[in-house]
Amino acid sequence: MVKLIALYKNPENKEEFDEHYFNTHSPITAEIPGLRKMEVTKIVGSPMGASDYHLLCEMYYDDHDALKAAMKTDEAKASGKDLMGFAGDLVTLMIGEEVEGE
Amino acid sequence: MVKLIALYKNPENKEEFDEHYFNTHSPITAEIPGLRKMEVTKIVGSPMGASDYHLLCEMYYDDHDALKAAMKTDEAKASGKDLMGFAGDLVTLMIGEEVEGE
Repeated sequence: MVKLIALYKNPENKEEFDEHYFNTHSPITAEIPGLRKMEVTKIVGSPMGASDYHLLCEMYYDDHDALKAAMKTDEAKASGKDLMGFAGDLVTLMIGEEVEGE
Repeated sequence: MVKLIALYKNPENKEEFDEHYFNTHSPITAEIPGLRKMEVTKIVGSPMGASDYHLLCEMYYDDHDALKAAMKTDEAKASGKDLMGFAGDLVTLMIGEEVEGE
Protein backbone atom coordinates (compact mmCIF):
# COMPACT_ATOMS: atom_id res chain seq x y z
CA MET A 1 0.00 0.00 0.00
CA VAL A 2 0.88 3.65 -0.32
CA LYS A 3 0.95 6.01 2.66
CA LEU A 4 0.58 9.71 3.06
CA ILE A 5 2.62 10.50 6.17
CA ALA A 6 2.24 13.64 8.28
CA LEU A 7 4.96 14.29 10.86
CA TYR A 8 4.30 17.17 13.25
CA LYS A 9 6.94 19.05 15.20
CA ASN A 10 6.22 19.99 18.80
CA PRO A 11 3.56 22.72 18.92
CA GLU A 12 3.84 25.58 21.40
CA ASN A 13 0.73 24.34 23.17
CA LYS A 14 0.34 20.55 23.04
CA GLU A 15 -3.10 20.54 24.70
CA GLU A 16 -4.53 23.03 22.17
CA PHE A 17 -2.92 21.12 19.32
CA ASP A 18 -4.31 17.78 20.47
CA GLU A 19 -7.74 19.25 21.05
CA HIS A 20 -7.89 20.49 17.46
CA TYR A 21 -6.13 17.49 16.00
CA PHE A 22 -8.28 14.78 17.53
CA ASN A 23 -11.63 16.58 17.61
CA THR A 24 -11.53 18.54 14.35
CA HIS A 25 -8.69 17.63 12.00
CA SER A 26 -8.75 13.87 12.35
CA PRO A 27 -12.54 13.54 11.75
CA ILE A 28 -12.30 15.77 8.63
CA THR A 29 -9.39 13.69 7.32
CA ALA A 30 -11.16 10.39 8.03
CA GLU A 31 -13.82 11.40 5.48
CA ILE A 32 -11.41 11.42 2.53
CA PRO A 33 -12.62 8.92 -0.07
CA GLY A 34 -10.24 6.02 -0.67
CA LEU A 35 -8.57 6.27 2.74
CA ARG A 36 -8.16 2.67 3.92
CA LYS A 37 -6.61 3.14 7.35
CA MET A 38 -5.25 5.94 9.53
CA GLU A 39 -2.60 5.21 12.16
CA VAL A 40 -1.67 7.87 14.67
CA THR A 41 1.45 7.67 16.84
CA LYS A 42 2.06 10.05 19.70
CA ILE A 43 5.78 10.84 19.93
CA VAL A 44 6.86 10.80 23.57
CA GLY A 45 10.62 11.14 23.30
CA SER A 46 13.70 9.62 21.75
CA PRO A 47 16.36 7.19 22.94
CA MET A 48 18.46 10.29 23.75
CA GLY A 49 15.69 11.99 25.78
CA ALA A 50 13.43 14.64 24.30
CA SER A 51 12.18 14.72 20.70
CA ASP A 52 11.48 17.67 18.43
CA TYR A 53 8.39 15.84 17.19
CA HIS A 54 4.89 15.48 18.60
CA LEU A 55 2.79 13.29 16.32
CA LEU A 56 3.03 10.97 13.33
CA CYS A 57 -0.03 10.14 11.23
CA GLU A 58 0.02 7.50 8.50
CA MET A 59 -2.83 7.44 6.00
CA TYR A 60 -3.05 4.36 3.81
CA TYR A 61 -4.32 4.20 0.23
CA ASP A 62 -4.43 1.28 -2.20
CA ASP A 63 -1.85 2.75 -4.57
CA HIS A 64 -0.46 6.01 -5.96
CA ASP A 65 -3.43 6.46 -8.29
CA ALA A 66 -5.86 6.12 -5.38
CA LEU A 67 -3.88 8.66 -3.36
CA LYS A 68 -3.78 11.08 -6.29
CA ALA A 69 -7.53 10.72 -6.84
CA ALA A 70 -8.17 11.20 -3.13
CA MET A 71 -6.12 14.40 -3.01
CA LYS A 72 -8.44 15.96 -5.60
CA THR A 73 -11.62 15.47 -3.59
CA ASP A 74 -13.41 18.19 -1.64
CA GLU A 75 -12.78 16.23 1.55
CA ALA A 76 -9.01 16.28 1.00
CA LYS A 77 -9.12 19.98 0.20
CA ALA A 78 -11.01 20.62 3.44
CA SER A 79 -8.47 18.56 5.37
CA GLY A 80 -5.57 20.40 3.73
CA LYS A 81 -7.10 23.79 4.43
CA ASP A 82 -7.66 22.86 8.06
CA LEU A 83 -4.11 21.49 8.31
CA MET A 84 -2.54 24.68 7.00
CA GLY A 85 -4.60 26.68 9.48
CA PHE A 86 -3.54 24.93 12.65
CA ALA A 87 -0.23 23.28 11.76
CA GLY A 88 1.11 24.67 8.49
CA ASP A 89 4.43 25.52 10.12
CA LEU A 90 4.68 22.24 12.07
CA VAL A 91 3.90 19.55 9.53
CA THR A 92 6.10 17.65 7.10
CA LEU A 93 4.22 15.58 4.52
CA MET A 94 5.72 12.53 2.85
CA ILE A 95 4.45 9.93 0.41
CA GLY A 96 5.73 6.44 1.06
CA GLU A 97 5.48 2.88 -0.18
CA GLU A 98 5.34 -0.07 2.19
CA VAL A 99 8.33 -2.37 1.78
CA GLU A 100 7.22 -6.00 1.77
CA GLY A 101 8.97 -8.82 3.54
CA GLU A 102 10.43 -6.88 6.46
CA MET B 1 2.15 -0.86 21.47
CA VAL B 2 5.26 1.27 21.61
CA LYS B 3 7.35 2.06 18.55
CA LEU B 4 10.93 3.02 18.02
CA ILE B 5 10.85 5.09 14.83
CA ALA B 6 13.85 5.78 12.61
CA LEU B 7 13.42 8.44 9.93
CA TYR B 8 16.27 8.76 7.44
CA LYS B 9 17.04 11.83 5.35
CA ASN B 10 18.07 11.35 1.76
CA PRO B 11 21.56 9.86 1.59
CA GLU B 12 24.06 11.04 -0.99
CA ASN B 13 23.97 7.63 -2.65
CA LYS B 14 20.60 5.90 -2.35
CA GLU B 15 21.77 2.65 -3.92
CA GLU B 16 24.68 2.31 -1.46
CA PHE B 17 22.40 3.22 1.44
CA ASP B 18 19.75 0.69 0.46
CA GLU B 19 22.35 -2.01 -0.10
CA HIS B 20 23.65 -1.56 3.45
CA TYR B 21 20.25 -0.93 4.97
CA PHE B 22 18.45 -3.97 3.61
CA ASN B 23 21.32 -6.47 3.54
CA THR B 24 23.21 -5.54 6.72
CA HIS B 25 21.40 -3.12 9.03
CA SER B 26 17.91 -4.54 8.83
CA PRO B 27 18.98 -8.17 9.53
CA ILE B 28 21.05 -7.03 12.56
CA THR B 29 18.10 -5.01 13.87
CA ALA B 30 15.63 -7.87 13.33
CA GLU B 31 17.60 -9.91 15.90
CA ILE B 32 16.84 -7.53 18.80
CA PRO B 33 15.00 -9.46 21.54
CA GLY B 34 11.46 -8.23 22.17
CA LEU B 35 10.99 -6.72 18.71
CA ARG B 36 7.46 -7.67 17.65
CA LYS B 37 7.26 -6.19 14.18
CA MET B 38 9.33 -4.02 11.86
CA GLU B 39 7.63 -1.91 9.18
CA VAL B 40 9.70 -0.17 6.55
CA THR B 41 8.34 2.56 4.31
CA LYS B 42 10.26 3.89 1.34
CA ILE B 43 9.66 7.62 0.99
CA VAL B 44 9.15 8.48 -2.67
CA GLY B 45 8.12 12.13 -2.51
CA SER B 46 5.62 14.51 -0.99
CA PRO B 47 2.37 16.08 -2.17
CA MET B 48 4.50 19.10 -3.14
CA GLY B 49 7.01 17.06 -5.15
CA ALA B 50 10.35 15.95 -3.71
CA SER B 51 10.95 14.96 -0.09
CA ASP B 52 14.02 15.44 2.08
CA TYR B 53 13.47 11.96 3.47
CA HIS B 54 14.35 8.51 2.15
CA LEU B 55 13.12 5.86 4.57
CA LEU B 56 10.94 5.36 7.65
CA CYS B 57 11.34 2.30 9.85
CA GLU B 58 8.92 1.51 12.68
CA MET B 59 9.96 -1.08 15.25
CA TYR B 60 7.21 -2.31 17.56
CA TYR B 61 7.61 -3.41 21.19
CA ASP B 62 4.99 -4.47 23.73
CA ASP B 63 5.49 -1.42 25.97
CA HIS B 64 8.08 1.07 27.19
CA ASP B 65 9.64 -1.45 29.58
CA ALA B 66 10.08 -3.94 26.75
CA LEU B 67 11.72 -1.27 24.59
CA LYS B 68 14.03 -0.19 27.42
CA ALA B 69 15.03 -3.81 28.08
CA ALA B 70 15.60 -4.38 24.37
CA MET B 71 17.86 -1.33 24.08
CA LYS B 72 20.23 -2.82 26.66
CA THR B 73 20.84 -6.03 24.75
CA ASP B 74 23.98 -6.81 22.76
CA GLU B 75 21.83 -7.07 19.63
CA ALA B 76 20.55 -3.50 20.07
CA LYS B 77 24.06 -2.23 20.74
CA ALA B 78 25.26 -3.91 17.54
CA SER B 79 22.36 -2.34 15.62
CA GLY B 80 23.07 1.09 17.11
CA LYS B 81 26.77 0.85 16.31
CA ASP B 82 26.02 -0.15 12.73
CA LEU B 83 23.45 2.66 12.44
CA MET B 84 25.90 5.32 13.58
CA GLY B 85 28.47 4.00 11.10
CA PHE B 86 26.36 4.26 7.95
CA ALA B 87 23.64 6.79 8.82
CA GLY B 88 24.53 8.66 12.01
CA ASP B 89 24.11 12.00 10.26
CA LEU B 90 20.92 10.99 8.42
CA VAL B 91 18.75 9.39 11.08
CA THR B 92 16.24 10.86 13.53
CA LEU B 93 15.06 8.46 16.23
CA MET B 94 11.72 8.84 17.98
CA ILE B 95 9.82 6.83 20.56
CA GLY B 96 6.07 6.75 20.01
CA GLU B 97 2.88 5.28 21.40
CA GLU B 98 0.12 4.01 19.13
CA VAL B 99 -3.08 5.99 19.54
CA GLU B 100 -6.06 3.66 19.72
CA GLY B 101 -9.38 4.18 18.00
CA GLU B 102 -8.19 6.19 15.01
